[in-house]
Amino acid sequence: MNRILYLLIFLLSFNTYAQSDEEVLRTIYTQSLTNGKSYAWLDYLSNQIGGRLSGSLQAERAVQWGKEELEKLGLDKVWLQEVMVPKWVRGAKEYAYIESSKKQTTNVNICALGGSVATNPLGLKAKVVEVHTFEDLEKLGEAQIKGKIVFYNRPMQPELISTFSSYGGCVNQRYSGAVEAAKYGAVGVIVRSMSLRLDDLPHTGSMTYGNLPVEKRIPSAAISTNHAELLSASLKLDKDLEFYFKQSCTQYDDVLSHNVIGEITGSEFPNEYFVVGGHLDSWDLGDGAHDDGAGVVQSMDVLRLLKESGIKPKRSIRVVLFMNEENGLRGGRKYAEVAKQKGENHVFALESDAGGFTPRGFSFDCSDADFEQVLSWKPLFKPYLIHYFEKGGSGADISPLKTDNNVLCGLRPDSQRYFDHHHAASDTFDAVNKRELELGAATMTALVYLFDKYGTNPLPNQSGIKN
Amino acid sequence: MNRILYLLIFLLSFNTYAQSDEEVLRTIYTQSLTNGKSYAWLDYLSNQIGGRLSGSLQAERAVQWGKEELEKLGLDKVWLQEVMVPKWVRGAKEYAYIESSKKQTTNVNICALGGSVATNPLGLKAKVVEVHTFEDLEKLGEAQIKGKIVFYNRPMQPELISTFSSYGGCVNQRYSGAVEAAKYGAVGVIVRSMSLRLDDLPHTGSMTYGNLPVEKRIPSAAISTNHAELLSASLKLDKDLEFYFKQSCTQYDDVLSHNVIGEITGSEFPNEYFVVGGHLDSWDLGDGAHDDGAGVVQSMDVLRLLKESGIKPKRSIRVVLFMNEENGLRGGRKYAEVAKQKGENHVFALESDAGGFTPRGFSFDCSDADFEQVLSWKPLFKPYLIHYFEKGGSGADISPLKTDNNVLCGLRPDSQRYFDHHHAASDTFDAVNKRELELGAATMTALVYLFDKYGTNPLPNQSGIKN
Repeated sequence: MNRILYLLIFLLSFNTYAQSDEEVLRTIYTQSLTNGKSYAWLDYLSNQIGGRLSGSLQAERAVQWGKEELEKLGLDKVWLQEVMVPKWVRGAKEYAYIESSKKQTTNVNICALGGSVATNPLGLKAKVVEVHTFEDLEKLGEAQIKGKIVFYNRPMQPELISTFSSYGGCVNQRYSGAVEAAKYGAVGVIVRSMSLRLDDLPHTGSMTYGNLPVEKRIPSAAISTNHAELLSASLKLDKDLEFYFKQSCTQYDDVLSHNVIGEITGSEFPNEYFVVGGHLDSWDLGDGAHDDGAGVVQSMDVLRLLKESGIKPKRSIRVVLFMNEENGLRGGRKYAEVAKQKGENHVFALESDAGGFTPRGFSFDCSDADFEQVLSWKPLFKPYLIHYFEKGGSGADISPLKTDNNVLCGLRPDSQRYFDHHHAASDTFDAVNKRELELGAATMTALVYLFDKYGTNPLPNQSGIKN
Repeated sequence: MNRILYLLIFLLSFNTYAQSDEEVLRTIYTQSLTNGKSYAWLDYLSNQIGGRLSGSLQAERAVQWGKEELEKLGLDKVWLQEVMVPKWVRGAKEYAYIESSKKQTTNVNICALGGSVATNPLGLKAKVVEVHTFEDLEKLGEAQIKGKIVFYNRPMQPELISTFSSYGGCVNQRYSGAVEAAKYGAVGVIVRSMSLRLDDLPHTGSMTYGNLPVEKRIPSAAISTNHAELLSASLKLDKDLEFYFKQSCTQYDDVLSHNVIGEITGSEFPNEYFVVGGHLDSWDLGDGAHDDGAGVVQSMDVLRLLKESGIKPKRSIRVVLFMNEENGLRGGRKYAEVAKQKGENHVFALESDAGGFTPRGFSFDCSDADFEQVLSWKPLFKPYLIHYFEKGGSGADISPLKTDNNVLCGLRPDSQRYFDHHHAASDTFDAVNKRELELGAATMTALVYLFDKYGTNPLPNQSGIKN
């Protein structure tokens, strides 16, 4: 009897072995490109729900939608996880103009930065001082800044190949510009939009007041790149010009929202958890199609593609649609906090939050041994033109899950067009290409499949296939 | 004196050596991304000139524009090369509908295929037989085809990663559909547009009548993918429906046009020629921004970027803006014919004709030794995410230049979006991303620089840098 059992196990293993990794990846990509759901999901999320800032009605609609769609997939578990989130509301459309010293006005496009206070209801008008860095503020000092609007105009560097590097080199102006300028008595802040294009769209995004008392908080807005150029050129001709802007945004008390979670329970190691996720919240100016509707629907499709491809994972695979990445990261923190409380061993997490563009590979936050194993899989990805496997960051929502020996990673799509859309009214469904989105979902599924099959923390000479 | 000369040569070589290949590539990419001209050129070519089918006024305007722009670059020579090209004119906008057997009509979007004859001035109406392959025609035979319109409806395969492979698997329906259907007495041909998207745009493109006598030529048109789906679904419900279409295209006698050529004459080996090119003609429905305005402006920028980067090529580098790739390849053939007559030794040619999308690498038609040398350069391209170096085809216009020992290659951009635009009204400037275009120009310039520095036909162990 025992021998028959062993024979059966042997035959079953042989059967599994017969489907090579090459074949499994081919199945996953074919499923995604011929039968994927990510694009249809994104259409609904972008066009029927739209922008979904934490605490908004749309964010709550997205939570319900996410739960309902995951429930249709026949997963082992689907649930909502409560999380308190900040609620910041933009209010009436912002209004701004440049007024020359001869009182000629030119309207310009601005938007309040997320978390900013409103201006006086009648608006704020003041002279402008242009700077590129916080060091510039120090050089100018209170004498030249007090009572003025500080205009941060350091552009993103076009010569960097990764647009995320260009963004990283500029975003401190947006995030900390107000708190730094307030130190010198500035009355407001205008920041050049974080975009490599010259166009008319202001790009919002989060900003902080740090420990600044409420009465010292100054309003902070982004200006389109074209109008940043205009303001800068105007200042060169007329340093006494004034800038007027009016915004009526409000910060409310925190409200209840949710992470949306679905799980395929592992067949062999149910207590080892994989997370695949993106963030369900978005900024309010566009539809949040690239940021991060794409990551949401790709992550949902990972679990569906595993099922459709006949893969029964050994470990428990969770999709997590995180709430409040944009202005608080409460969802990511909450998920990690609960996981820790429950003693859940999260061995792997993958986030897609860099747009729904053609995938190029992944960035890994993991041990050398895990990374070596990843590199051994490169030939499997070559037919799909997935070539980028580098150590580096993963994703904001999953970063609180980091331990000494787990694997965190981020999908790395082509980045060239990302900041044309990021946090702006142009982040819409029509800017997402169906095939590019589907290739991303397939690429994520393939990585999850391989890590589930071969495990994390490989012993020396025990990592996955070597080609 | 001789010793001083040697010392001078030594110092000059040292000076050249001091600028490493890594540094030169960094300079080239920075120039293109901060100071490139390709995007502004493409704006003019797409928006001020527009679609430029061979023999059209716009094609002649593009020739003049190309010559004038190259003359501004301070090249060593700029000239036009005469070439006779076919002149096919679309005429009045095509018109088509499906008429059910109960005489209900539904309008559908079609466009005449390039080279097709017109319908009768009153249009053509006939029953429809749907096929996927030429073998289907054979099975149906004259009995079921005679007097009908053949509807080719084999879709591009979405599961292939390279969309050019999907295209290659379908385009015989468009190119040879009419001549094959005419054998069985068909009276017209409707072809599903060569696109992976489901949308409302018909995509034109070249077709042939082979040796078919004029009186046996049947009109041939493309139908949008959405309407191909509609026609197919309608036929399933109503096999006796009729299809009506009217088109008034005309083939005129050949007319005179030109290739546009510019040259930087080589400093050491002026009689060894490099060609970098794209095709100046385009189809008439869009602006020809991706096909192949992008390749034209990138090729022009290669010579400009070499100059701006302070590179003095050893060999003669020519930019060739080929006329008539789309419906005749007369420009490519003419250029090769003249080169052969003059005994010009063309050692290298590079074409960009796959859209202005993020470059991924190159495809090479060359010897193993040349290809090995290319592979040794891969590390130089890694910072720019250029990873695709494979043997394969090069480009239609340069293919007549092939010899036993030269190197032909084609730029390979990301292909996912290409057939959304190819030969359709959606091939417009706004569909081209500035950075993606500029990265392509830089990548081409880098390859030209390396081949010029290290030469083609490397002896064993004498190829370029090995990393």
